[in-house]
Amino acid sequence: MAKGNAVIGQSGGPTSVINQSLVGVIQAVQKSNHIDELLGARHGVRGIINEDFVPLRQATADWIERAAQTPAAALGSTRDKPDAAYCEKIVASFKKNNVRFFFYIGGNDSADTARIVQELAAGAKYDMQVFHIPKTIDNDLRVHDHTPGFGSAARFVAAAVMGDNFDNASLPGVKVDVIMGRNAGFLTAAAVLARRNSEDGPHLIYVPETVFDVDQFLGDVDRVHKKAGRCLIAVSEGIHDQSGAPIAAVLAEKLGRQVEKDSHGNVQLAGSGILGDFLGDLIKDKLKIKRVRSDTFGYLQRSFPSLAVSQTDADEARMVGKVAVEYSRDESKREGSIAMIRKSNSPYKIETIFTSIKNVARETKHLDAQFLDGTSNISNAFIEYAKPLVGPLPKTASLDEVR
Amino acid sequence: MAKGNAVIGQSGGPTSVINQSLVGVIQAVQKSNHIDELLGARHGVRGIINEDFVPLRQATADWIERAAQTPAAALGSTRDKPDAAYCEKIVASFKKNNVRFFFYIGGNDSADTARIVQELAAGAKYDMQVFHIPKTIDNDLRVHDHTPGFGSAARFVAAAVMGDNFDNASLPGVKVDVIMGRNAGFLTAAAVLARRNSEDGPHLIYVPETVFDVDQFLGDVDRVHKKAGRCLIAVSEGIHDQSGAPIAAVLAEKLGRQVEKDSHGNVQLAGSGILGDFLGDLIKDKLKIKRVRSDTFGYLQRSFPSLAVSQTDADEARMVGKVAVEYSRDESKREGSIAMIRKSNSPYKIETIFTSIKNVARETKHLDAQFLDGTSNISNAFIEYAKPLVGPLPKTASLDEVR
Repeated sequence: MAKGNAVIGQSGGPTSVINQSLVGVIQAVQKSNHIDELLGARHGVRGIINEDFVPLRQATADWIERAAQTPAAALGSTRDKPDAAYCEKIVASFKKNNVRFFFYIGGNDSADTARIVQELAAGAKYDMQVFHIPKTIDNDLRVHDHTPGFGSAARFVAAAVMGDNFDNASLPGVKVDVIMGRNAGFLTAAAVLARRNSEDGPHLIYVPETVFDVDQFLGDVDRVHKKAGRCLIAVSEGIHDQSGAPIAAVLAEKLGRQVEKDSHGNVQLAGSGILGDFLGDLIKDKLKIKRVRSDTFGYLQRSFPSLAVSQTDADEARMVGKVAVEYSRDESKREGSIAMIRKSNSPYKIETIFTSIKNVARETKHLDAQFLDGTSNISNAFIEYAKPLVGPLPKTASLDEVR
Repeated sequence: MAKGNAVIGQSGGPTSVINQSLVGVIQAVQKSNHIDELLGARHGVRGIINEDFVPLRQATADWIERAAQTPAAALGSTRDKPDAAYCEKIVASFKKNNVRFFFYIGGNDSADTARIVQELAAGAKYDMQVFHIPKTIDNDLRVHDHTPGFGSAARFVAAAVMGDNFDNASLPGVKVDVIMGRNAGFLTAAAVLARRNSEDGPHLIYVPETVFDVDQFLGDVDRVHKKAGRCLIAVSEGIHDQSGAPIAAVLAEKLGRQVEKDSHGNVQLAGSGILGDFLGDLIKDKLKIKRVRSDTFGYLQRSFPSLAVSQTDADEARMVGKVAVEYSRDESKREGSIAMIRKSNSPYKIETIFTSIKNVARETKHLDAQFLDGTSNISNAFIEYAKPLVGPLPKTASLDEVR
């Protein structure tokens, strides 16, 4: 006999494969008999407290496969970060709707919400199980070897930088590509996969895990440009100086310009050309290089459709959804995050483990020291780590092979 | 007996399929006996006057297929716009190297270079034939129904906006996507292909063919946002006011900000976040909408690798290269541009014609009036025109289908 209903929600910045996890849950629930209805919460926790639910158990196979290919959160997402009072309302909604299973797809903040909900339910002796299904292009969840969403965003970045390398070789100059990742440099580091041979860019890669020194940066660019006649730079939106101040703000001051801040006093980073423009202007001003361009990849990194998705990432995103439902059959599993652990790299092989949500919630992880190569490059160890997640990139040719 | 050598060059902003045209020429020359060596000029006209040539006739089939998939100009491109004196040097280089065929892949400026070279050669009674092979993501060549490079750039834009529509629906707000095209709105108009149903964005599309009125724009955004709770906007980098002044400059003045200009006094448009940031700030300031984001798609539109390329575009780009070599067998064909003309739209069918380069050079074309639908939308006629060029986009699903 089924124990009750389940709720599934999606939270935080969407990814290109977040719906793979959604359909993984739907498919597993359709085959299960321990769950009655699967309620999709519209816009995450907000849909739960507003009881804005869509029944999903009867979704057709055709819809499921199309939804799986659709980027961004089909249920809608939310930026709400519930406090204890908000979580009380969540538990009240669960009780009212006889929800005994909560599947929450998200990053570390969403994991923390799931953790609080589980504690409140347990404290109220309300029998329910809570599962965190990982999702973040930032790839910054502790315990997890990597997270669904990262492989596809990294594939987009690697492909875009690869194309840009050829563009930069066609019309030589300096090009700055600004990549998402305020605190963790995984996505920016993935730009390294664009390199095919020693002449290829990105020639310089800057991540938030190291201190960004403006003078050293200019020296790096000058050296590469003098040697290669061009320079392709991948830089994280989150680079900062010794004091932790974002470089966009530091450069704004140097260049006598104003910078926009959000309500928390944070410099607005994503989706704005400000950092790329500042770095470009700096290179023009100080190095007297004429052709300097910048691009900010922006939201395309997380929302580009299936054309650029990593198949491994898509498969794994669906798998973690299914595994969460499998784990939910076991009543002793009260709360946990479904984490992928790498068993071997060649051949690439992962397995999932069930880890307490508290091991994943709130704090994040950063690029390991072994993944860095000085302050302006990424190591071969990272290439080995990231390659299977991103999948094969298109073949290319260079003129040198014909010469 | 072969008549002499041929030179092939690539010019202007690269595209994702410009090398398809290059390999089309190589493959046709390999099968021909009227051409001796095929010399690839490094960086277009600059490589010609510097005699920086790479022999291409012996290129292997493996290299050819990899090069065809590689975005941007394998030979290198150039922004040089040769005057008569420069063109004299080109003709001198051709004479010295017994070049009797000149294949130049480029847009309207490159066509004009080819035209001048042909006139100078004819004036000097130097026997040579000159062929312009079309290439431009702007799709703005006269006579040509469409140009190689456009379909793939349009496919990138349509796919990116499609993904962004789902992202915007996940976390509702206003999103501004700035798309390339300083004078012609074809590429921005292609954003309309992202729409699947009446709720989908882009909800508003602004091209340079109409006057952009700031107050009307704010009214449009307000109306859509109030009705749909969100608004996705596709806007060309080249939008301008009644006087022809770029909107980036107009808004800079309104918002009391400075704007960067290049050496010709043009506001720097491509690859910078300035227009998107200005429009975003304006919406925040005037409409008091909290979540407003902008992206500038930048150089990715022309350089994204084969993952997002239109197969039709790739095939046609190769075909026009081959056809140019075919035409060159005919000694009466002294100069011309290989233009695609649409014979039927359903089924999609084109044929090539040979038109004098002067019909294509210098002046460009714009979006036809029938392709516009008021000042903030694109017509069904454009959708019919562009669909076969862009190819099928990924299937998607919306939650409404399950509800």
